Amino acid sequence: MATQTFDLSNIYSKDSVDTELRVPVHAKYDFATAQPDPDSIPFKGLTDALSTMLEKQGGDLAFYPDTRGIPELRELIAAKLERDDGFKVSPDNIAVVNGSAEANFVVIKALVDPGDTVIMEHYVYSGTLAQFRKAGANVVGTPIDDDSIIPEELEALIVKLTAEGKKPKLLYTIPEFQNPTGNTLPTERRKQIIDICRRHHMVIIEDECYTDLRYEGETQESFRSLDDSGMVVYVGSFSKILAPGLRLGYFVSDPETMRRALSFRMTGTNHFTSLAVYEFLNREMYKHIDYINVINRPKRDAMVAALGENFGGTGTTWSTPKGSLYLWVTFPEHVNATELMPIAFKAGVGFNSGASFAPNGDGDHCARLCYGYESVEKNRDGVALLAEIMEREGSFKVSPGG
Amino acid sequence: MATQTFDLSNIYSKDSVDTELRVPVHAKYDFATAQPDPDSIPFKGLTDALSTMLEKQGGDLAFYPDTRGIPELRELIAAKLERDDGFKVSPDNIAVVNGSAEANFVVIKALVDPGDTVIMEHYVYSGTLAQFRKAGANVVGTPIDDDSIIPEELEALIVKLTAEGKKPKLLYTIPEFQNPTGNTLPTERRKQIIDICRRHHMVIIEDECYTDLRYEGETQESFRSLDDSGMVVYVGSFSKILAPGLRLGYFVSDPETMRRALSFRMTGTNHFTSLAVYEFLNREMYKHIDYINVINRPKRDAMVAALGENFGGTGTTWSTPKGSLYLWVTFPEHVNATELMPIAFKAGVGFNSGASFAPNGDGDHCARLCYGYESVEKNRDGVALLAEIMEREGSFKVSPGG
Repeated sequence: MATQTFDLSNIYSKDSVDTELRVPVHAKYDFATAQPDPDSIPFKGLTDALSTMLEKQGGDLAFYPDTRGIPELRELIAAKLERDDGFKVSPDNIAVVNGSAEANFVVIKALVDPGDTVIMEHYVYSGTLAQFRKAGANVVGTPIDDDSIIPEELEALIVKLTAEGKKPKLLYTIPEFQNPTGNTLPTERRKQIIDICRRHHMVIIEDECYTDLRYEGETQESFRSLDDSGMVVYVGSFSKILAPGLRLGYFVSDPETMRRALSFRMTGTNHFTSLAVYEFLNREMYKHIDYINVINRPKRDAMVAALGENFGGTGTTWSTPKGSLYLWVTFPEHVNATELMPIAFKAGVGFNSGASFAPNGDGDHCARLCYGYESVEKNRDGVALLAEIMEREGSFKVSPGG
Repeated sequence: MATQTFDLSNIYSKDSVDTELRVPVHAKYDFATAQPDPDSIPFKGLTDALSTMLEKQGGDLAFYPDTRGIPELRELIAAKLERDDGFKVSPDNIAVVNGSAEANFVVIKALVDPGDTVIMEHYVYSGTLAQFRKAGANVVGTPIDDDSIIPEELEALIVKLTAEGKKPKLLYTIPEFQNPTGNTLPTERRKQIIDICRRHHMVIIEDECYTDLRYEGETQESFRSLDDSGMVVYVGSFSKILAPGLRLGYFVSDPETMRRALSFRMTGTNHFTSLAVYEFLNREMYKHIDYINVINRPKRDAMVAALGENFGGTGTTWSTPKGSLYLWVTFPEHVNATELMPIAFKAGVGFNSGASFAPNGDGDHCARLCYGYESVEKNRDGVALLAEIMEREGSFKVSPGG
């Protein structure tokens, strides 16, 4: 029964915005995807694990489980945190949710009112930046160097903001292999930052999505292992060691913060996937993490070598992370990577310009290049193609290799 | 490093509330769970389907898919809606999300501002009622009879609310096998309700979670098939024909409402589970739905028979739905089923009193008894035990069976 169109314009809520849908697109050389290699996903391991668990306790799928997710997975995470992150926590204080995106979002909703000021690294993961903005936060970036957040600059910023009547409520940080730069915050700086945040009564959200992806050097001490006062909320994920399509992440907090955060959830944790992930990790978590890192390291090496070969002499610099899935490139100031993005995409190279990671604007002359998703060969060839495209577009005053 | 407890009380957002966690509990006879029989879940079918799809396209798990979920599943849903619900819709206008709970919640967020008045059936599913309240809605129940919403009463209520300056924005309804009553709204009433809502410029959210669970009689025409103006948002789910632990539901709306609703999501659709559910349903959806209904019918019969045997002569009445997983019991007015709940639970019988389904309060003398989750035998024995408990508690002036 076709009727005339119903006008909803005066029905939509004030909060609602008509936004673009995300439809996945991939360039031939996809350096925009900060995700693991599709060929590394343990399909058979996951389905075998799932079969075992469904046989054992699949009937539990017929009801809504604990708001914090299945106990087995929370126990396994507790053991992992004690071993890898150096702190003991009861599985009762761990909540498994549908990806670290959901973890971050509900924690933000529990802590942030519209107009509140929050501090993030400048540059920082665009997804979380968008979540803070959706929550109405006034996001301010704190300067970083090769060792990530600079404690003195952070404190100066807090003092300045406080003097302006915008006392920040929290600091969101990715301490290990910061996304997008790949930088890691040394333990010594973490201790200073804890001291600063305690004095200024600020919560720290520590997003440790990438901490398992180290193939060189030493993991630094987690904020949560350095402070168990309730000031630190720890966020983790299985997206980077397994796959984002599994949509399982978790957070650790004091009980009241957890209950408040979980009350913002819109749905329960996926039980089906939890069973598969639990049993797979229970069988071979560290074997799989080792495997992921063995395949990632030569990919980074290939991209770094290709950058040297193709961008040497152009005034371009780049980070060389000791883990993660991406690195950060700084082109000469006059390059506009934001304008280059669609041109490069069309020509076969996908990447994100720095602008999307910049709380304070700017970043147009920077880019995040992800090396974990594509193969060694494609990392090499894609970087060469990018240099070709940029030369064609007049990005370099000096020829690559020159 | 133990430090003194960090005081978060002045950090929490104004919206955040310290709520109880949901921890699953089951009575020996669990009539509180409006979910399918655990033994009916096709474990092997789902893992076989998953294996096939992972082999074929599992690499896609390595990135974030379309905000609306995988195209295959949306195409399958479009075909199902045309066959079962009598309307044609492009897969582009279907969004698969993590359960119908998420579907309802994001649609509510897109349409409802705090203080807005909305109308629901009185009685209505407690989960959606809680979602409207979380969104700050002023929820008003409209009276129902054995054929669900009474159009004349609905219009009188709208006129009254409008005169009071509380013009309702939308009607939320479960037309087929209304939860908790099991009642179905006849097509003729649906047409009248569409006319009423159009005249009063109100959106209809049609939640069709239970529509597949019919083992008697004819499916009525869906609101969406009667109106394609954009006034109707259609919500569906796989929780009731497969399992809630799969957390997959969907909604159909006009494109702008969809984009606005999806912008409230906190995470993406579970891709892993989507692959399993798509391929399983593609292979044997109707065979499985038939199977579910073949096992549900004798369960309903057993519970209805047991109610007759054990509650005859007590002044108790009950609905006899032609499908679904539950029925609605009305005890004599003086019975307080809300107070009985914990006593019965302890003695072995779990159920929900009517109060939790009542937008306008009341409902203490009513109860929803779910028959789909337990076996025929347990439905029979559990109802007998409930009568025993209630007699012991002095609920009946006349003895059961007397």
